Amino acid sequence: MATLKDLEVSPEGTQVPLADVIDQLKFNNDGLIPAIAQDHDSGAVLMLAWMDRHAIQRTLAEGQVVYYSRSRQTYWRKGETSGHFQDLVSMHFDCDGDTILLRVHQTGAACHTHRPTCFYLAVDNQSVSVELPK
Amino acid sequence: MATLKDLEVSPEGTQVPLADVIDQLKFNNDGLIPAIAQDHDSGAVLMLAWMDRHAIQRTLAEGQVVYYSRSRQTYWRKGETSGHFQDLVSMHFDCDGDTILLRVHQTGAACHTHRPTCFYLAVDNQSVSVELPK
Repeated sequence: MATLKDLEVSPEGTQVPLADVIDQLKFNNDGLIPAIAQDHDSGAVLMLAWMDRHAIQRTLAEGQVVYYSRSRQTYWRKGETSGHFQDLVSMHFDCDGDTILLRVHQTGAACHTHRPTCFYLAVDNQSVSVELPK
Repeated sequence: MATLKDLEVSPEGTQVPLADVIDQLKFNNDGLIPAIAQDHDSGAVLMLAWMDRHAIQRTLAEGQVVYYSRSRQTYWRKGETSGHFQDLVSMHFDCDGDTILLRVHQTGAACHTHRPTCFYLAVDNQSVSVELPK
């Protein structure tokens, strides 16, 4: 079985079974891995949430992003209450298998504050500023 | 003191002291928070690493990104061994204070495999493919 280390030096186009790679992902003690959602069209980083193995598999099978909610301890299809679904365009793992990048078509606002991205608090040496209108 | 909840509904341009917001960040049990690095020019998501309070302050003060290495348990100025520094363009916190977004000018490759991004493993329902040339 190819390890992530093997894939580091494998030629472009090398393909291995998903199950082999999922077994090598570095889930934390709660069985979770961070997943970054990026808007496919604008490139904006929208949010970060968490997935377990089943959320990864559901997202791939269903084509809409399903996270695992740490606060509610349950699966959470993004948009299931807000209508602001994330249609999956692509999923990538990183080199050492500890982060997921999701490129998505975002319906409506990604943020629960109705801003397009959750990252609206601009930080400098002294202060934090609210950057996007509510 | 303004809480993150207050800032959710504050008008654009509202400014609060950095120290007040850092006290509200949701550091994990190891005192760390995930930080996403995004290339300012291309919009590519480059990598995810971790920061503690001091790494945040050092990054802002020094203008180059400093992470906290979980494996080596020490501060790590990205590029200090590779020369592949990340010059900070902007830092943002997200709505609930549990993730940082760094926009950077990346010198050289962000990934230790010398690929421009760490997210070169494309995932589908069945398989994982190496997407970028080594």
